[in-house]
Amino acid sequence: MSRKSKRSLKEKFSLKNSMVKEALSEFLGTFVLIALGCGCVGQAVLSRGEHGGPMTVSVGFAMAVTIAVYVSGGVSGGHINPAVSLAMCVTGRLKWTKLPIYILAQLLGAFVGAAAVFGIYYSALMEFSDGKLEVTGPNATAQIFATYPAPHLSLVNGFADQVMSTAFLLLAIFAIFDTKNNSVPKGLEPIAIGLLIIVLTCSLGMNSGCAMNPARDLGPRLFTAVAGWGMEVFTAGNNWWWVPIVAPLLGAVLGAMIYVIFIEIHHSDHQSGEENEAHAKYELTNMA
Amino acid sequence: MSRKSKRSLKEKFSLKNSMVKEALSEFLGTFVLIALGCGCVGQAVLSRGEHGGPMTVSVGFAMAVTIAVYVSGGVSGGHINPAVSLAMCVTGRLKWTKLPIYILAQLLGAFVGAAAVFGIYYSALMEFSDGKLEVTGPNATAQIFATYPAPHLSLVNGFADQVMSTAFLLLAIFAIFDTKNNSVPKGLEPIAIGLLIIVLTCSLGMNSGCAMNPARDLGPRLFTAVAGWGMEVFTAGNNWWWVPIVAPLLGAVLGAMIYVIFIEIHHSDHQSGEENEAHAKYELTNMA
Amino acid sequence: MSRKSKRSLKEKFSLKNSMVKEALSEFLGTFVLIALGCGCVGQAVLSRGEHGGPMTVSVGFAMAVTIAVYVSGGVSGGHINPAVSLAMCVTGRLKWTKLPIYILAQLLGAFVGAAAVFGIYYSALMEFSDGKLEVTGPNATAQIFATYPAPHLSLVNGFADQVMSTAFLLLAIFAIFDTKNNSVPKGLEPIAIGLLIIVLTCSLGMNSGCAMNPARDLGPRLFTAVAGWGMEVFTAGNNWWWVPIVAPLLGAVLGAMIYVIFIEIHHSDHQSGEENEAHAKYELTNMA
Amino acid sequence: MSRKSKRSLKEKFSLKNSMVKEALSEFLGTFVLIALGCGCVGQAVLSRGEHGGPMTVSVGFAMAVTIAVYVSGGVSGGHINPAVSLAMCVTGRLKWTKLPIYILAQLLGAFVGAAAVFGIYYSALMEFSDGKLEVTGPNATAQIFATYPAPHLSLVNGFADQVMSTAFLLLAIFAIFDTKNNSVPKGLEPIAIGLLIIVLTCSLGMNSGCAMNPARDLGPRLFTAVAGWGMEVFTAGNNWWWVPIVAPLLGAVLGAMIYVIFIEIHHSDHQSGEENEAHAKYELTNMA
Repeated sequence: MSRKSKRSLKEKFSLKNSMVKEALSEFLGTFVLIALGCGCVGQAVLSRGEHGGPMTVSVGFAMAVTIAVYVSGGVSGGHINPAVSLAMCVTGRLKWTKLPIYILAQLLGAFVGAAAVFGIYYSALMEFSDGKLEVTGPNATAQIFATYPAPHLSLVNGFADQVMSTAFLLLAIFAIFDTKNNSVPKGLEPIAIGLLIIVLTCSLGMNSGCAMNPARDLGPRLFTAVAGWGMEVFTAGNNWWWVPIVAPLLGAVLGAMIYVIFIEIHHSDHQSGEENEAHAKYELTNMA
Repeated sequence: MSRKSKRSLKEKFSLKNSMVKEALSEFLGTFVLIALGCGCVGQAVLSRGEHGGPMTVSVGFAMAVTIAVYVSGGVSGGHINPAVSLAMCVTGRLKWTKLPIYILAQLLGAFVGAAAVFGIYYSALMEFSDGKLEVTGPNATAQIFATYPAPHLSLVNGFADQVMSTAFLLLAIFAIFDTKNNSVPKGLEPIAIGLLIIVLTCSLGMNSGCAMNPARDLGPRLFTAVAGWGMEVFTAGNNWWWVPIVAPLLGAVLGAMIYVIFIEIHHSDHQSGEENEAHAKYELTNMA
Repeated sequence: MSRKSKRSLKEKFSLKNSMVKEALSEFLGTFVLIALGCGCVGQAVLSRGEHGGPMTVSVGFAMAVTIAVYVSGGVSGGHINPAVSLAMCVTGRLKWTKLPIYILAQLLGAFVGAAAVFGIYYSALMEFSDGKLEVTGPNATAQIFATYPAPHLSLVNGFADQVMSTAFLLLAIFAIFDTKNNSVPKGLEPIAIGLLIIVLTCSLGMNSGCAMNPARDLGPRLFTAVAGWGMEVFTAGNNWWWVPIVAPLLGAVLGAMIYVIFIEIHHSDHQSGEENEAHAKYELTNMA
Repeated sequence: MSRKSKRSLKEKFSLKNSMVKEALSEFLGTFVLIALGCGCVGQAVLSRGEHGGPMTVSVGFAMAVTIAVYVSGGVSGGHINPAVSLAMCVTGRLKWTKLPIYILAQLLGAFVGAAAVFGIYYSALMEFSDGKLEVTGPNATAQIFATYPAPHLSLVNGFADQVMSTAFLLLAIFAIFDTKNNSVPKGLEPIAIGLLIIVLTCSLGMNSGCAMNPARDLGPRLFTAVAGWGMEVFTAGNNWWWVPIVAPLLGAVLGAMIYVIFIEIHHSDHQSGEENEAHAKYELTNMA
C-alpha cells in the first residue's frame, strides 16, 4: 500500500470517528436535557403543584439546558436542538453533511430521555391517574413529555409564537458567542444560555410551553405514543404536533439572520487580527 | 482628488457608519428587552397568576436585560435606556451628539418590542377580556406594556420613587464597570446587571413597577395608545405617563454623580498606569 | 521646612485621606445594602404578599449584598458589617485603629438607608396601617427595618441562632477569598457572597430574620425609634435589640477561627511563592 | 539516623498530615452542607410553608452545596459525598486508601451538621409538635434531617430513582471538570455544581427527596435516632434507610462510566500537550 492511500484511509477513518464522537455527544446531551428538563415538568404536574410550579419548571428546565450544554459542548458544540444545528449550517458554522447525523442523535437522545422520566416517575404516574395515561383533562400527563397549545391559542398565533421564540433563542445564542461583541467568557456560555432559557420560559411559555426545539418535542411525543398515551398525542390541540417541528426551524434561521444583519456584518474588519478572530468565532459559535 | 480629501471622506463615512451601527444595536437591544421583559409581565397577567407571579416577572425581566445587553453591549455599549445614555453623556463617556440617535433608536425598539408582545399574546389578550383592551379594572392589560402607579401612591412619592430607583441603577452600573473598584470581569457585566435588576424589582417594584427607563415606558405606552387601549394610557393614574420619563433622567444623573463623588474621584492616580486605566474604563463603562 | 518633615506630613495627609475614602465607601455600601435589602422586606410586607414573599426577600436581599459589595469592595473591602470588620481585625486583615471608623460609617449608612426605604414607601406605609406605625400585630411594619424574634424563640436559642449564622457567614467568606483554597475569581466574589446570603436566609431566616450584622439591625432600629414607631422597637421581643448586635460579633470571630483552624493553617507553605500569595490573600480577603 | 531514613520519616509524616488535612476539610464541608442544606428543609417544614417552599429548599440546598464545595474544594476536592469519593476512586482520581477516611469524615460532618440544625431550631421543633418528635403524620419532622419515600413509591422504583439521580450527578460533575470538554473556569465549579443541584432537586426531588449522598442521609438519620425520634427513622417507608446508601454508590459509578464511555475516551490525544492536560484534569476533577 502506498503512503498516499494510507493517509487517505486514515483521514477517512478520522472523519468517521469524529462523526461518531459528535453523534454520541449530541445523543447524551439531548438525553440529559429531556430527562432532567421534562423531569421538572413531571414533578410539578404529578405533585399537583406541591413540589413544583412555574418557577421550578422555568429555572429547572433552564439549568437542564446548562448541564446538557456542559456535557456536549466541547465535542459537538452542544446544539441539542435541530433548529440550532440548522442555523449553524445556514451561517456556515456546521457542515451540511453533518446535519442529518446531528438531528438523528438529538431525536434518539430525546426519546430515551423521555423513557427515563417515565421510569423514574412510573409509580407516581400510575397513582396520579389510577393507571390511565391521558392526553387531555384534569389528569392529563402527556404535557410532561411533549408540548400542547393552550385552549385560547389559534393555530396561526401558535405558529408565530414558535417562530418568534426560537428566533429570540438563536439571536441571543449568536450574541453570547460573538467574540467581536461583548461575548461570555469561555466555559461560562452554558450558564448564560441557561439564563436565556429562564427569560424565554417566563415570557413566552404560556401559549404552548415554549418547545423551540423539534427534537425536544417530537422525541418525547413519539415515546408517549408508544408508551400508552396513544395516537391522541398527535391529534390533540388541532393536530398541534407539527408546529413545534416546522416553526422552530424557520425561527432559528430568522433569528440567526436578524443577528447577522443587525450586528455581525457591521463589525469592523480592522480590529485585532481578523483571521484569528474569525477562527475563534467559528469554534465558539459552534458550541451552542 | 488629493490623498488628504480622500482620507477625510473616509473618516466622514466611517463616522456615519458607526452611528448607523450603534443605532441598529440600540434598536435591537431595546426590542429584545421589551419583547422578552414585557412578555414576562404578559404571561403573569394573562394566565391570572397560573404561569407566573412576582418571582417570574422579577427574574424574567432581569434576564431580559442581561440578554439585551449581550446583544447590544459590544457595538453601542448596551445602554437600552435613555437615562443611562444621558448619564454617560454627563460623565463624558458618550458624545452628546450621539444622544438623540441613541434615544430615538431605543424608543423605536421599545415600540416594536411592544408590538411583538401584542402579536405573541394576541389570542390570549382577546380571550382574557373578551376582546376589550382595558387600562384599569380587574381585566386591565395595559400594565403589561407600560407602568402605572399603585392606588396608594401620591404623585410626589411616585416621582421620588423613580428618581431614587434610577439613581440606584446608575450608581450600581458605575460600580460594576469601574476597573479601579472591584469590577466584574469582562463579558460578565450583563449578568451582574441582571442581578441588579432582580434586587431593584424585588425592592422598589411595588409603587409603580420600577420602569427606570423612559424608552421602556413611553415606547410601549405609545404602542398601546395606537393598538386599541386608547388615550386613557396617558390620563390613567393622574396623568402618570410623564413621570417615568422625567424622573429617571434626573435619577440617572443623580446616581452617577453620587458614585463619582463618593468613590470614583478618590481613586489614587498612582496605581497601575493611569492613562491605560482611564482608556479601559471608558470602553468598559460605555458598555451599559 | 526640611524634606523629612514634608514627607511625614504627606504621609499623615495620605493616611487621613485613605480613612475618609474608606469611610465614604463603607457608608455608601451599607446605605445601598439597607435601602435595597430592607426595600425587599417592605415590598413583601406592604403588598401583603402580592408583590413578594420568602423567595423575593431571600434573593432580593442577597443581591442587595452583592451590589453593596461591588460598590464598596475596591476601596474599603466591602465589609458593610461591623461583625465582618471585627473578624478582619482579629485575623490581622484590618488595622484595629480603623475599626471604629468602619463601624461608625456602616451604622450611619444603615440609618440613612432606612430613611430612604421610609421615603420610598411613605404612601404605602400610611395606607397599610391607616397612618399608624406599629411594632407588633397584624399591621406591624417595624420588621421591615430591624429584625424581631419569632414568638416560639427562647432568648438562649435566639442568641445561639445569631452566633451560629454569623459564624457560617464568616467561615464561608474566608473560604471564598482564600487563594490557597478553590477561591472565587477576582471580581466575582460579590456574586458568590450573594449566593451565600441566599442559602443563609433560606435555612436560618425563620427564627429571627437572620440579621448577622449589627449595623444592618441597629441602624434601621434607631431610625424607626425616631421616625414614629417609638421605643417599643427596643422593648419588643423581650428586649431583643441587643442580641443582633452582640451575638454576630461573637459569631463572626468564631466562624473566622473555625476556618483558620480547620483549613487555613494546614495550607502547605511551599506552594507557589509564599510571600506573594500571602500578600494577594491579604488584599483579597480584605474585600468582604 | 541516616539521611535516607530521615527523609522517609518526613514523607510518612507528610502523608499522615495530608490525610488529617483532607479529613478535616471533608468534615467541615459536609458539616456546612448539612447544617445549611437541612436548615432549608427545616425552615420550610417548621414554618408550615410560610417562610419556605419547594423553591427555597431547592435553591437553598443547592447553594449549601456550592458553599460546602468552596470550603473544602481546595484541600480535599470538596467531595462531601461518599458516592462522589467512590466514583473518583473507580476512575483513578482518588487513592483507594483514602476512601475510608473520606467516608468517615463525611459521615461525622453530616452527623454534627444535623445536630447544629437541631440546636438552631430547638425552640421551633418543640413548638411545632408540642415537644413530640415524630417520623410520620402531619407533624412529622424527621424528613428535615433524612429522606423518606413518598407514599406512591415502590421500593424498586425508589432504588432506580436514587441510582439514576446520582448517575446524573456524577455524569455532570465529570463534564464540569473535564478540561478537554467545555469545562467551567477554575474557581467557578462550585457555582456550576450548585446550578446542577437546582435542576436535580426540581426534576428528581419528588419521589424521595433526592439524597444522592449516603453521608447526607445516614449521618442525619443516625442523629435523629439518637436525638429522640427513635428507631422508627430506620423502619419508616418500608425500611427505606438503606436505599439512599446503596443506590447512590451504584449510581455514582454508573454515571462516571457513562461519561467516560460517551465523551472522555473519545477526546483526541493530540490536542495541546497530553501529559500536562491529564495532570491538570486530575487536579480539577479531584475538586468535586
